[in-house]
Amino acid sequence: MTSTNSIPFDTDQIRSQIDHAMGAFLDTLNLPSKLDEPVRYSLLAPGKRIRPLLAWASAQAAGGDGSESLPVAVAVELIHAFSLVHDDLPALDDDDLRRGRPTLHKHAGEAAAILAGDAMLALAFEAVSKVRPHPTTDTHAKLITQLCQGTRAMIAGQVYDTLGGFDDSLSDQQKIELIHTNKTGALIHAACVMGATAASADQPTLDLVSGFACDLGLKFQIIDDLLDVQGDPKLVGKALRKDDDANKLTYPAVLGIERSKEIIGTLHRDALSKLDQIGPASSGLRLLLDLMTNRSH
Amino acid sequence: MTSTNSIPFDTDQIRSQIDHAMGAFLDTLNLPSKLDEPVRYSLLAPGKRIRPLLAWASAQAAGGDGSESLPVAVAVELIHAFSLVHDDLPALDDDDLRRGRPTLHKHAGEAAAILAGDAMLALAFEAVSKVRPHPTTDTHAKLITQLCQGTRAMIAGQVYDTLGGFDDSLSDQQKIELIHTNKTGALIHAACVMGATAASADQPTLDLVSGFACDLGLKFQIIDDLLDVQGDPKLVGKALRKDDDANKLTYPAVLGIERSKEIIGTLHRDALSKLDQIGPASSGLRLLLDLMTNRSH
Repeated sequence: MTSTNSIPFDTDQIRSQIDHAMGAFLDTLNLPSKLDEPVRYSLLAPGKRIRPLLAWASAQAAGGDGSESLPVAVAVELIHAFSLVHDDLPALDDDDLRRGRPTLHKHAGEAAAILAGDAMLALAFEAVSKVRPHPTTDTHAKLITQLCQGTRAMIAGQVYDTLGGFDDSLSDQQKIELIHTNKTGALIHAACVMGATAASADQPTLDLVSGFACDLGLKFQIIDDLLDVQGDPKLVGKALRKDDDANKLTYPAVLGIERSKEIIGTLHRDALSKLDQIGPASSGLRLLLDLMTNRSH
Repeated sequence: MTSTNSIPFDTDQIRSQIDHAMGAFLDTLNLPSKLDEPVRYSLLAPGKRIRPLLAWASAQAAGGDGSESLPVAVAVELIHAFSLVHDDLPALDDDDLRRGRPTLHKHAGEAAAILAGDAMLALAFEAVSKVRPHPTTDTHAKLITQLCQGTRAMIAGQVYDTLGGFDDSLSDQQKIELIHTNKTGALIHAACVMGATAASADQPTLDLVSGFACDLGLKFQIIDDLLDVQGDPKLVGKALRKDDDANKLTYPAVLGIERSKEIIGTLHRDALSKLDQIGPASSGLRLLLDLMTNRSH
């Protein structure tokens, strides 16, 4: 089935609603000023809002108008922002630049960065608690479980990437898949399944969205690896060739650039086939898949 | 009403069940070894398990047998362990010793300590999700909200304590109350109300447990301040006089030792009056109140 009857998906307009929802959520909390400022610095920084957009498009794929996803969109962006802040710390990736601006520990100090990251992680669960479309079913419990699993896997991925500790039996390709499907893929997956769940997806649609998210997440990270090798630091907005410096496992390092591109192509086709099965309501997800394929930064 | 018909509350036996539940929960997760080891090092370290015991006793106060609280007991101990690990980091309190052993960043490195703390924070929400005594009511949503609020307030308290940023209009006593009711009080409060909620407390009991927890939490922290001035490092199991070194606000520093002791007495009487209103089922909470009053470490 093709998306001839696609539904509206204006990324700028949706981003604007997401940013408004994030600000409005923080406004309700009355955080101490020394916490509120660093949280806003990180969360509201200019960004692509990929994960919130995925949540919105997944809600549409499940038959919603997209706005059902707003609380979970806020939640996944909070988790994403927390992970960037902690990953940038001197003890981890030790990055000074993020999204073209000083990283939070450079801007506000390391103590503020640790605590603001902690707060954003906790606040994500608070944001999800705003979704109760069906108080007599356990939609809320499902969303919390999906967010827990995504966050736990994301942290596990960062542990593998930073500290290693792999099973001796794994090949380099298996190791890099384990890192990527967890470190980046898990939160992309959570964004999609939570968006669909917030819009009361039926099980077949949820399964298709889940499969799509796995393809997309791995593809997205392989592209990120390639951009690190081939990209322009001014466009990407952060220091590049870090992976090479640190001898980290990446797809191009393990499999070469050409083979990495082939895998991207396969993942793209697999993802499309799931969207075809969902039908016209998947047009937002299709658009995001294309955006994430063709990005140069 | 006096507690002549008190119910059994064997702290060693309950601690043993709590420790077993924490280990069993971790066993289900299959964490990477480089994450699993630091999480177990912190979470399963010998400790008083004050917050889990409070959750258990609060469940009894609400008419349960206590065991209803096990998942929330695990959750609050995970939050407590996360907060200790991050608070001990060089950028925050920079402590080398905790519970008589090297702090996690001394034992496993700073990256592992940051990531294990993050994981424990996220896992707390996963632990709560094991409580679904009444799938058709929103007990689960209530517990998540209580845990969110407790965790957020705890982090806010640490921000006030570490980074300041108080409203100019506050007195030193108001500042120290703000620090303590958030930094220590909020998680003690969450432990109590979550324990009672897990055992399906009625609203009057929940209100009494909540009020008791506020009295207890503040009292506990003032005692901690006093131990820092007057305690024996060998018994307390961590470096002392840190507060004095860092010019931190504490009750003895702001109000003097005698006045601090008077406030402790008032809080103790207030707490007891709430337990009297709950009746014999509050005997576990009464025992914990006494334990926490008479502690020397």
